[in-house]
Amino acid sequence: MAEWIGKDRRARRCYGFDEVALVPGEKTINPNEVDTSFSIGKMKFNVPILAAAMDGVVDVRFAVEMSRLGGIAVLNLDGIQTRYDNPDEVLDRIAKASAQEATALIQEVYRHPIKEKLIGKRVEEIKRKKAVAVVSCIPAHAERFSQIAVAHGADIFVVQSTVTTPKHISSEYKSLDLYRFCAKTKIPVIIGNCVTYETTLELMATDAAALLIGVGPGAACTTRGVLGIGVPQVTATIDAAAARDFHYKRTGKYVPIITDGGMNRGGDICKAFAAGADAVMIGSSFARAKEAPGRGYHWGMATSNVNLPRGTRIYVGTTGTLKEILFGPAKVDDGSQNLMGALKTSMGSLGAANIKEMHTVEIIIAPSIQTEGKIFQVDQRVGMGK
Amino acid sequence: MAEWIGKDRRARRCYGFDEVALVPGEKTINPNEVDTSFSIGKMKFNVPILAAAMDGVVDVRFAVEMSRLGGIAVLNLDGIQTRYDNPDEVLDRIAKASAQEATALIQEVYRHPIKEKLIGKRVEEIKRKKAVAVVSCIPAHAERFSQIAVAHGADIFVVQSTVTTPKHISSEYKSLDLYRFCAKTKIPVIIGNCVTYETTLELMATDAAALLIGVGPGAACTTRGVLGIGVPQVTATIDAAAARDFHYKRTGKYVPIITDGGMNRGGDICKAFAAGADAVMIGSSFARAKEAPGRGYHWGMATSNVNLPRGTRIYVGTTGTLKEILFGPAKVDDGSQNLMGALKTSMGSLGAANIKEMHTVEIIIAPSIQTEGKIFQVDQRVGMGK
Amino acid sequence: MAEWIGKDRRARRCYGFDEVALVPGEKTINPNEVDTSFSIGKMKFNVPILAAAMDGVVDVRFAVEMSRLGGIAVLNLDGIQTRYDNPDEVLDRIAKASAQEATALIQEVYRHPIKEKLIGKRVEEIKRKKAVAVVSCIPAHAERFSQIAVAHGADIFVVQSTVTTPKHISSEYKSLDLYRFCAKTKIPVIIGNCVTYETTLELMATDAAALLIGVGPGAACTTRGVLGIGVPQVTATIDAAAARDFHYKRTGKYVPIITDGGMNRGGDICKAFAAGADAVMIGSSFARAKEAPGRGYHWGMATSNVNLPRGTRIYVGTTGTLKEILFGPAKVDDGSQNLMGALKTSMGSLGAANIKEMHTVEIIIAPSIQTEGKIFQVDQRVGMGK
Amino acid sequence: MAEWIGKDRRARRCYGFDEVALVPGEKTINPNEVDTSFSIGKMKFNVPILAAAMDGVVDVRFAVEMSRLGGIAVLNLDGIQTRYDNPDEVLDRIAKASAQEATALIQEVYRHPIKEKLIGKRVEEIKRKKAVAVVSCIPAHAERFSQIAVAHGADIFVVQSTVTTPKHISSEYKSLDLYRFCAKTKIPVIIGNCVTYETTLELMATDAAALLIGVGPGAACTTRGVLGIGVPQVTATIDAAAARDFHYKRTGKYVPIITDGGMNRGGDICKAFAAGADAVMIGSSFARAKEAPGRGYHWGMATSNVNLPRGTRIYVGTTGTLKEILFGPAKVDDGSQNLMGALKTSMGSLGAANIKEMHTVEIIIAPSIQTEGKIFQVDQRVGMGK
Repeated sequence: MAEWIGKDRRARRCYGFDEVALVPGEKTINPNEVDTSFSIGKMKFNVPILAAAMDGVVDVRFAVEMSRLGGIAVLNLDGIQTRYDNPDEVLDRIAKASAQEATALIQEVYRHPIKEKLIGKRVEEIKRKKAVAVVSCIPAHAERFSQIAVAHGADIFVVQSTVTTPKHISSEYKSLDLYRFCAKTKIPVIIGNCVTYETTLELMATDAAALLIGVGPGAACTTRGVLGIGVPQVTATIDAAAARDFHYKRTGKYVPIITDGGMNRGGDICKAFAAGADAVMIGSSFARAKEAPGRGYHWGMATSNVNLPRGTRIYVGTTGTLKEILFGPAKVDDGSQNLMGALKTSMGSLGAANIKEMHTVEIIIAPSIQTEGKIFQVDQRVGMGK
Repeated sequence: MAEWIGKDRRARRCYGFDEVALVPGEKTINPNEVDTSFSIGKMKFNVPILAAAMDGVVDVRFAVEMSRLGGIAVLNLDGIQTRYDNPDEVLDRIAKASAQEATALIQEVYRHPIKEKLIGKRVEEIKRKKAVAVVSCIPAHAERFSQIAVAHGADIFVVQSTVTTPKHISSEYKSLDLYRFCAKTKIPVIIGNCVTYETTLELMATDAAALLIGVGPGAACTTRGVLGIGVPQVTATIDAAAARDFHYKRTGKYVPIITDGGMNRGGDICKAFAAGADAVMIGSSFARAKEAPGRGYHWGMATSNVNLPRGTRIYVGTTGTLKEILFGPAKVDDGSQNLMGALKTSMGSLGAANIKEMHTVEIIIAPSIQTEGKIFQVDQRVGMGK
Repeated sequence: MAEWIGKDRRARRCYGFDEVALVPGEKTINPNEVDTSFSIGKMKFNVPILAAAMDGVVDVRFAVEMSRLGGIAVLNLDGIQTRYDNPDEVLDRIAKASAQEATALIQEVYRHPIKEKLIGKRVEEIKRKKAVAVVSCIPAHAERFSQIAVAHGADIFVVQSTVTTPKHISSEYKSLDLYRFCAKTKIPVIIGNCVTYETTLELMATDAAALLIGVGPGAACTTRGVLGIGVPQVTATIDAAAARDFHYKRTGKYVPIITDGGMNRGGDICKAFAAGADAVMIGSSFARAKEAPGRGYHWGMATSNVNLPRGTRIYVGTTGTLKEILFGPAKVDDGSQNLMGALKTSMGSLGAANIKEMHTVEIIIAPSIQTEGKIFQVDQRVGMGK
Repeated sequence: MAEWIGKDRRARRCYGFDEVALVPGEKTINPNEVDTSFSIGKMKFNVPILAAAMDGVVDVRFAVEMSRLGGIAVLNLDGIQTRYDNPDEVLDRIAKASAQEATALIQEVYRHPIKEKLIGKRVEEIKRKKAVAVVSCIPAHAERFSQIAVAHGADIFVVQSTVTTPKHISSEYKSLDLYRFCAKTKIPVIIGNCVTYETTLELMATDAAALLIGVGPGAACTTRGVLGIGVPQVTATIDAAAARDFHYKRTGKYVPIITDGGMNRGGDICKAFAAGADAVMIGSSFARAKEAPGRGYHWGMATSNVNLPRGTRIYVGTTGTLKEILFGPAKVDDGSQNLMGALKTSMGSLGAANIKEMHTVEIIIAPSIQTEGKIFQVDQRVGMGK
């Protein structure tokens, strides 16, 4: 696992989605009969997919529809929804900005202060529709925002930053004590993002209800490009899963891990589960939904960072309803629609009756090499019926 | 072989065609004097290449010509040929559809029901021309369609799905019992697709006449992209060949393995044989034949899957007759024509007098790296005469 | 570490920036509170980044501004600044030349003789502005130019060639004795470039104040393409750092190593520090500064080599002030601006309070694979706040 | 060295030029003082580079100039020069053909019979200019053509095919007995091409004066694409060099090995020598010479193969005189000119006083990865002076 990368240092070889593939076993299952459910606290969800707390992805309307379909959408409390009484007007402006103006406009939009009254309002709007209300903010806002959110009926609270560890050192401000925070917050708390076995174990000790796994996962991810930081998701997920299993053995508490980031196609999602994920969190695929507030555009939360902007607004298009993206029928064949259909078909083909069995599917290393001399774009000798 | 990909999991490194190359030995043979034949049951074929059961590749006319030239073409019983009395009219429509309309049209075309009377008709059309009639369908149709096909004179029956295992679990429908199916079917049965040593061994125990090897073989393959499933073909073929050899040692029965998918150029075919294939199955290269029903277009059978379409219609062009594609003279130099010439020249250069000797040729790992600073496209200091 | 690359030879596997990533640990630090300073001799610098001695990057004005901002800019004594009384006129011509004319023009410009009186003049121009004056030349000019530079007040002298070793064999001319040179030069001497543990140790024995590490670092680097020579920077830096640490243990003298070349983005700089660098030297990112004399163009010093030109003039554009490039706010999101912000954020996320702690951050091997099937260009689920 | 690529098979990992780099040692040498000479039989050449026997590269005029400059050009006796009294007229037609017509025209041109009288004529034309006359043909022609060539004064005879082994099996024709052929031919015989330690040893036993090493070397090479055959050149050269050294130890005869194919830039040539080559054979770089008969076009000898054409005519342009390509000054900076300057500079930087010392230079594995996030095309912080 560890190779010499210089005179006196070794490094682990880590793996991403493109470098691995899954291997069918000795039985197959009717895809309609596999169980994809997962639980956070006492809540059970049939769709083990979370929509990421990004302003181009989740607003109240999206959250309600996602909940109705069996999944979870996380509403960002640090973004447009809580800074503007009328977010749609702002979202329209972002969608209409030229490519040149976009980054500057997004930075400007996020300079507007957060209105705390909107936190409660958004939670209530979701709850009024009988949907599960899941909201998130950065650690610095967590103490205050969580109280408001809980008071207005939120079901799950997410504390999220690029890299979260139980210990944060600062003399300028007081750090969030995650142990205390989880203990006193009356609803399940999801914490993220982390990687490595050790940090996962430590964060599980805070009594979090679930953890988000993934830091700088993709090759194109700006965290890796700008900060040099990142762990490919297959390895990150396997390590976190090992920590989860050890934590369970030691404490009897099963803390689900949610692989967050780097999944672009159905196959990537399937691989995340095979690596040990209990659920996955996805942004860009959902930004393409008719219900997404981004109007076909998508941007990362770090795009608005005035000093160190990372990522930019990109056009992803609107390709179908959220229901189509989750359950099909797919109108496009690039693996970005019918994510649940892909997951079920994969589980069936691999003989995994549920997510737990999916965790034990054989993974191989099978680099995704670009074929130079390939005559055609696609090898479509694939699957007949089933 | 197995490397650590995370805290507590190892994964085998598997290899595809682009990552390996063949090494000449200490003798060479006149390419005209090598023997490329292979057998299924008691039938012997000089061309160890099967045309895939795809509707853009094989129809009655193509099957007849392929048989005449010494190879095997598999007619798809779940497709256009058995859904339409006049397939040409439908094929014309697909060829004339715009790129945008194609996937939807293909999905619509395949919603038309299969007419069982056309199964017998197509088999008879092939037999009438004294050709070998090989037909295929998915497991769910196998019991019924095989009886009709056999009754009308089919020579070989192929049961094929993306992933086939001896055990399929479903409470919704009754699974095909492959042991029983092979036992009662009066003609040789080819089963596919599978990968791994264990599944190959188990499927050989069903008394199949041959197996199709390959699941999600190519990097671009949609099975791998959409489902995350796939094993690169060099490793898949070596593993299956090892199972074949062990099965032979144990039972005395030699069950040929047919590597299916992922081969784009002559060199890929040569590598499949070196890895242990007795024959190969090819789609796209044959879609370019004048005799192919696709009119220069090609699409996978999963393209028509309403819920989880994978692959799309692509334009491959018509570059020559089937005879030219198999035996040359090649008019293009991309390795897609004169496949048999390439195989024979390769065998001669490698000193392999027949397919069995080809199975022992030295394989090296030699990644296909794209040369950045390369001044010219092609290094053509290649081979003089011979 | 060493793999067989043929019958009787082994080779070490070496690693570059794109192949590794950094892993967060168990704590994080407020980025505003990390210490990025480094020292050469008795001089301490808050910005551990040197601007390379390239004529499109550093002139007097640039050097003054860089010094004011806390970093170091090296003025090239073998280039335009010392060949022309009025460098701006020449730099204008280079910037205005067509792409076709550029290489020939640059070769011509550098045929003009160096005027020794300009060496003193340039040093004085820098010192007059109270800036740190750092100048460089090739070994053949070092004896003479250093005396002039020191006499006029230079603070640090750099002797630099593509590959520098303590022993240079020639019967045509007298080689520079680096031991003697360091001993008699009254200001700190930086020597470069070198790679390998052994050569670093030997060059440290010359009593150099710091070493430049890096020979043919990048895949695209012309030294590697034209001469076949090069060591990827992560391994080169780790090896040199190991030599530095051993030298320190043996002699009590800490000789900083400066990783030079191959860093294009903030993340690469962070990785260089994690590999053991005390500082880094950068060219192209600074060529984009408003203060850079290249007017948006950039060329290597080997471009002017009449017999073996390597590299060419390229357009990099002018994207902001030097201050913006170093400290932001970034106007672009490609990681080429706010280099210090990126470094501090990275150190904070990794829990490294200073450069020494950064040397012990975990590095993983995480190849930068281009995702074929990626639907969107950028995965922007990156970092929220902080 | 050998890795498992499947259940029961292992494969050696082999390396090509793009995957390795050379490491400077502890001394450097003045490039003007390195010795690049090599010998075949009793002939000594200062330029260890052979121009390949390709019709777009070598004709009488080119051969004379190459010899004058200290190198070797091999004239192809199976090509245009011996099929046509007036080759220039034919070469004009090839140069003027459209891209579509080119392959067919080349195939037609090579159907014209070889005129044996032209063999002697060409040799005499070269000898008349006091140049070294080196000619080549395929094994089938060797017995007859060598007698004519020797009779007219040829200095070295080359027998070359894609894969040459001491044993060729055929019942259709009589194979060339290489042992007998070398014994009876009165001038030194160069045999090629081969790879592997064993075959190199066996071919050395035929008493050849030198061997050509290389089969399907490049990733883009059509031999590898069409036939699946190929060994990357770094490993092939190391293996052949090991055989040469063992043959020398056993017999006292030093048989030089000439690495043939896959070298596109100066750096590749340097790496071939570091891997153990005594000389290198190059095609495409020379096709760009003013003296090259291809008029800026280049095609492989297999392009004319009627049944299995490989490679095609490509436009390489005319960039300078042969002298400029060999000795500079370079007008372009892509590493395709001043090949000897690059070799000497590389040897100097690596501290190798002659080719023998170059054989012991440290090689590292340093994959050439395409940097995704790279802002600029070229990192030109390369080399100052020297």
